Amino acid sequence: MDSKAGEKLVEEACKIIMEEVVQKADDVTEKVCEWQAPEKLKQILDLEMRDTGESHQKILQLCRDVIKYSVKTNHPRFFNQLYAGIDYYSLVARFITEALNPSVYTYEVSPVFLLVEEAVIKKMIEFIGWEEGDGIFNPGGSVSNMYAMNLARYKFCPEIKEKGLSGLPRLVLFASEECHYSMKKAASFLGIGTENVYFIKTDERGKMIPEELEKQVQRARKEGSAPFLVCATAGTTVLGAFDPLDKIADICEKHGLWLHVDASWGGSALISRKHRRLLHGIHRADSVAWNPHKMLLAGIQCCALLVKDNSGLLKKCYSAEAAYLFQQDKFYDVSYDTGDKSIQCSRRPDAFKFWLMWKALGTTGLEERVNRALALARYLVEEIKKREGFQLILEPEYANVCFWYIPPSLRKMEDGPEFWQKLHQVAPIIKERMMKKGSMMLGYQPHWGKVNFFRQVVISPQVSREDMDFLLDEIELLAKDL
Amino acid sequence: MDSKAGEKLVEEACKIIMEEVVQKADDVTEKVCEWQAPEKLKQILDLEMRDTGESHQKILQLCRDVIKYSVKTNHPRFFNQLYAGIDYYSLVARFITEALNPSVYTYEVSPVFLLVEEAVIKKMIEFIGWEEGDGIFNPGGSVSNMYAMNLARYKFCPEIKEKGLSGLPRLVLFASEECHYSMKKAASFLGIGTENVYFIKTDERGKMIPEELEKQVQRARKEGSAPFLVCATAGTTVLGAFDPLDKIADICEKHGLWLHVDASWGGSALISRKHRRLLHGIHRADSVAWNPHKMLLAGIQCCALLVKDNSGLLKKCYSAEAAYLFQQDKFYDVSYDTGDKSIQCSRRPDAFKFWLMWKALGTTGLEERVNRALALARYLVEEIKKREGFQLILEPEYANVCFWYIPPSLRKMEDGPEFWQKLHQVAPIIKERMMKKGSMMLGYQPHWGKVNFFRQVVISPQVSREDMDFLLDEIELLAKDL
Repeated sequence: MDSKAGEKLVEEACKIIMEEVVQKADDVTEKVCEWQAPEKLKQILDLEMRDTGESHQKILQLCRDVIKYSVKTNHPRFFNQLYAGIDYYSLVARFITEALNPSVYTYEVSPVFLLVEEAVIKKMIEFIGWEEGDGIFNPGGSVSNMYAMNLARYKFCPEIKEKGLSGLPRLVLFASEECHYSMKKAASFLGIGTENVYFIKTDERGKMIPEELEKQVQRARKEGSAPFLVCATAGTTVLGAFDPLDKIADICEKHGLWLHVDASWGGSALISRKHRRLLHGIHRADSVAWNPHKMLLAGIQCCALLVKDNSGLLKKCYSAEAAYLFQQDKFYDVSYDTGDKSIQCSRRPDAFKFWLMWKALGTTGLEERVNRALALARYLVEEIKKREGFQLILEPEYANVCFWYIPPSLRKMEDGPEFWQKLHQVAPIIKERMMKKGSMMLGYQPHWGKVNFFRQVVISPQVSREDMDFLLDEIELLAKDL
Repeated sequence: MDSKAGEKLVEEACKIIMEEVVQKADDVTEKVCEWQAPEKLKQILDLEMRDTGESHQKILQLCRDVIKYSVKTNHPRFFNQLYAGIDYYSLVARFITEALNPSVYTYEVSPVFLLVEEAVIKKMIEFIGWEEGDGIFNPGGSVSNMYAMNLARYKFCPEIKEKGLSGLPRLVLFASEECHYSMKKAASFLGIGTENVYFIKTDERGKMIPEELEKQVQRARKEGSAPFLVCATAGTTVLGAFDPLDKIADICEKHGLWLHVDASWGGSALISRKHRRLLHGIHRADSVAWNPHKMLLAGIQCCALLVKDNSGLLKKCYSAEAAYLFQQDKFYDVSYDTGDKSIQCSRRPDAFKFWLMWKALGTTGLEERVNRALALARYLVEEIKKREGFQLILEPEYANVCFWYIPPSLRKMEDGPEFWQKLHQVAPIIKERMMKKGSMMLGYQPHWGKVNFFRQVVISPQVSREDMDFLLDEIELLAKDL
């Protein structure tokens, strides 16, 4: 393909993207999804890669089909995950980086994106409340949590980098029973073992109980194991709960434990003067995971691991000093070659889209976004309380609104195993119906000892009170025969 | 920002991207980079994020500046890394996914991209020569290598997932001394320890010596440690060497060791009937890392970890069974919800850009791309042999052309410490000059016991013989006073 034909293709595709994705992003008359069963969708997409390439027209048609059958996560009625909506500045930044195709490891290859990352990390650190610090953007909150776990381990015993864990006492870490599943994945991946994550009981709002943490630390000590890390959560995945960071920090200080805060979801509340109290005490953490791709709409992926230490711990822990990449005899200040702080080699410039968005909206614009989402969540909660058949799971502090819908046939049933068994089946049926209709998407799960309930997540600035009302109306409509 | 203004911004930015990046991608009269020292560039970019947002015009100007001061990795004379050039189909696919903003974990949220990933993995497995297998796209070759290391460890002792490494014998793995630095990073991250990577000597072409591997496995056994994995490399980072996979596989079979092949760089040769012999024996591997974002231009990042096992090992090793995401009572076949095979939660649809490119070019188009790059590398080698002052480090098998440039003043010097010390300083000076001029970019490093030499990497289909000639002319020009 010559470059002229290539440019034409890109132009034609951009037109399709503008018309079919960007311009439809705020249109509630469009479907959120165009459901097809896997086997059927395979046929439609003609997935097979052949010896000979397809025609120009076929490629453009494939682009249209890919868009058509993909879930519209930008849609105002996509409430299914901890991300949603569209930010136009971030989107522009993402197009730029895809076109430039950079990899962020050395200043020589990625001058702009390295400086931007440094500036963004510095600003995020300011909002955490540290005087100084370090950090790195990486592929997801799960990976941020791994980074932190390994860093805490390195701080605990630097020799592990070279010697490994063999022959060492059993390392133990603590996280609430409401923490993200990545804690288990990380413990397994890092050779610590999932059984050495001690899960701490939570209270009636899903928050870690500090006294229980204290007990578990003492238990670990008595067993002769080596406690090294507490992972608190600021904004749990299902309930949106915030652990009491200040009290947890007291315990960490007392026992000499690293405090990591998984604020992947809740971190964005730091931007809001009204809501940052949710993370009171976060400045006492040793590390923080914070994903601007969730509440702040920076686009997947945009995830930072931030570290209070400013003595080069991140680099000491992670460096491998590859001579072919991190030459020390370069003609510029090689302290800008920050790639050796990473577990990756090639790395995407994820800070840039957040930076451009922040430049454009200003801190006050980001703050309004958070305040608006939380105000809408509050509106939804009040509406739920007013409506028959809807029942809140708990009074939310954040953007997760968890509730049951009790359909007409169950409303007069006695409380008992049969009731709960039947209620458990309600959410999956409603979910199936909404997907097949394409009217909206929200998630459900069994959790916290409770049968299937809905988790509604409010994020997108394209969402209005009308969408909240629609959500409740639509559930009633879809479940009227249940 | 309302949606109309947002759409307008995206349109204006797309125009800038087309004009400043896409249309200039094949223009050799443009600069590869517009060098600025870090402190100066910080001023130009006005990095500070403020309370109030910037104007529309300022944002567009920032976009232009970001492009201007970024390295043009698409440029025909960017030879600095193991990726380069532009593929228009891949670029279109990347714009689509950025606009759709998907995350690949469940079929309900990412139906198209999950099916596409499945199809691409199946096809890649076919080219490896396995009858069946499994795989996952992930954020980079380094991470692929980590996946493989953990998988081999799980196979060796599944209990490690829950119990961790504490109390176990010292695990040992083997890799050539030319392997990528990610092996050390992985061993450290996974709690194995960098000292437990036993580096195997290589021959005069940088290939692992099987007899040396055999010796080291026996040494490890004698020490009472637990060998579990051999990481062979197909296409080393600096020299482009291919380990003798068939002979290494014999040793792995004999000793019951997992064979992982890091073909992040060299894997794309599998697409070429002419060059796939470089990876002879790869079908005997248990796992393979292969990055289509390198030689095949799929765009960063596009990296697969492929696994021969088809009994669900990947899922068993990695799953955490989060109930909120991987509900078992969904209305469709939940075996399509493949996200629990991942160490990530959110995950980008990296297979899609490779798929669209493969659909458009066909296997023969991809094959031509590989053949063309390797033919051009061969051309460069022959030109280097003809020119005075240029000296090959070794006869290359792949697209890495490693050479010294000996400037006029050193040509008559006697071989000895002073000569090598002076030669060591030549490449950094030439590199500085080419960067400040912006005429081209290629890397150098001290390596393999040799003083600084250039590593030229030939990938992009936008590169011609003229560019190869230019490269050599330009080095001569930049170094004429040295």
